[in-house]
Amino acid sequence: MGTLYIISSGPGDVNQLTPEAARAIAAADIIIGNAFYLAILGGFLQGKEVIYSAMGKEIDRAREACRLAADKNVAMISGGDAGVYGMASIVLEIIEHEFPGLEYVVLPGVTAATAAASKLGSPLSGDYVTLSLSDLLTPWEVIVKRLELAFQMGVPVALYNPKSRGRPVNLHRALVIARQYKDDSTPVGIVRNAYRNDEKIIVTTLGELYNDDSFVDMHSILIIGGEETRIWKEEENVRGIITPRGYHRKYVY
Amino acid sequence: MGTLYIISSGPGDVNQLTPEAARAIAAADIIIGNAFYLAILGGFLQGKEVIYSAMGKEIDRAREACRLAADKNVAMISGGDAGVYGMASIVLEIIEHEFPGLEYVVLPGVTAATAAASKLGSPLSGDYVTLSLSDLLTPWEVIVKRLELAFQMGVPVALYNPKSRGRPVNLHRALVIARQYKDDSTPVGIVRNAYRNDEKIIVTTLGELYNDDSFVDMHSILIIGGEETRIWKEEENVRGIITPRGYHRKYVY
Repeated sequence: MGTLYIISSGPGDVNQLTPEAARAIAAADIIIGNAFYLAILGGFLQGKEVIYSAMGKEIDRAREACRLAADKNVAMISGGDAGVYGMASIVLEIIEHEFPGLEYVVLPGVTAATAAASKLGSPLSGDYVTLSLSDLLTPWEVIVKRLELAFQMGVPVALYNPKSRGRPVNLHRALVIARQYKDDSTPVGIVRNAYRNDEKIIVTTLGELYNDDSFVDMHSILIIGGEETRIWKEEENVRGIITPRGYHRKYVY
Repeated sequence: MGTLYIISSGPGDVNQLTPEAARAIAAADIIIGNAFYLAILGGFLQGKEVIYSAMGKEIDRAREACRLAADKNVAMISGGDAGVYGMASIVLEIIEHEFPGLEYVVLPGVTAATAAASKLGSPLSGDYVTLSLSDLLTPWEVIVKRLELAFQMGVPVALYNPKSRGRPVNLHRALVIARQYKDDSTPVGIVRNAYRNDEKIIVTTLGELYNDDSFVDMHSILIIGGEETRIWKEEENVRGIITPRGYHRKYVY
């Protein structure tokens, strides 16, 4: 009997893949994932049976991985952290319903929110909220309720899936809600394709983004600042976004 | 002129350290961090100038790292992800105020919440809130307000620093708030020392934890389930915690 490894491949390329995840891939008999994430694994795929699965076919992919894991070690690859908008939950649901007793291991990875944050300086720093604007699996009314509460918390909010195919206005609708609770001067950081060749980093404000969000796409992560978040500039040079941890309340420096 | 690398060492040992972080450590002239996190780096420290800094001396450590980076490459080590309750924000604040022009790079890592989640199955899965119960740098009233809003969101809540030295009751106070919004049957996962030798994983419920939280310490991460989170059992065997993504609303399986 095999084991199903649900492996987080992290953002971007294999430079963000943990050694434990790399070893699990190397030890697997079969590797399965969507082509976009498998492409970055390069040499790791040599000599392996590789199953390229289509985007949007998560249930079929999870079921096939479980079926194969009955007698082989299978590595299911999931971008970012598999436990955050990744494959972990649907694989476990399929095991629960259809493959009782199947052994699984989840290996964590660098999640997209902290990868984006690292490119922006320190916009999260401590407490924060992670929300997706995709209403494919979550009703839009639920997303609205969560956004309203999140923006009242005063902490940074990381937005995944700001636009989906066929849902180009979800981000704009979210920004309308944000502006009910936050000043237009609130810093916003946007990272497209973090740790990939075509990475793009933008530091802007809520008011500016509200007027034009055309450069945001489905591969972007947004971080909307909390009540203490500021844009750090040296003269006209933007050096990053800082959300202070609170040391200024305890110590003078 | 040197560069200051703010490096996320991830949870546990070097098996969770990204290749990019490992290379930055290997290339650094000086490595600085608190002894607890430096201890896990082992062979990475050979032949390096290493500065062991005391816990609680974050501002001094940040300032010393900046001073040294004036003419050497310095690697500041921060456990988990440096941008989440780590050293990134205070280092950037010190650069902003005292070392203008100093070059910095933040390298992301596996953050404690997703590391803990991976040990519990898939308790986060999507939208979630990250909060710390330490009132060392954040006033307790602010923490209470954030907890109240977070629990109303219906999403999983990851709690860092559930107990601090001298603040053993913060967790109990947070659980009192949780019980105003959530059933006692709400699943709670607790992971102590994730990816370390003395790792401990506990699956319980809000009601049970409210009655006895004595096994939770400052090195524990708690994940309090959202409104759809469930404990997955096979007969009496707990196999994990699942927060479904929502596929069951779209597809039959």
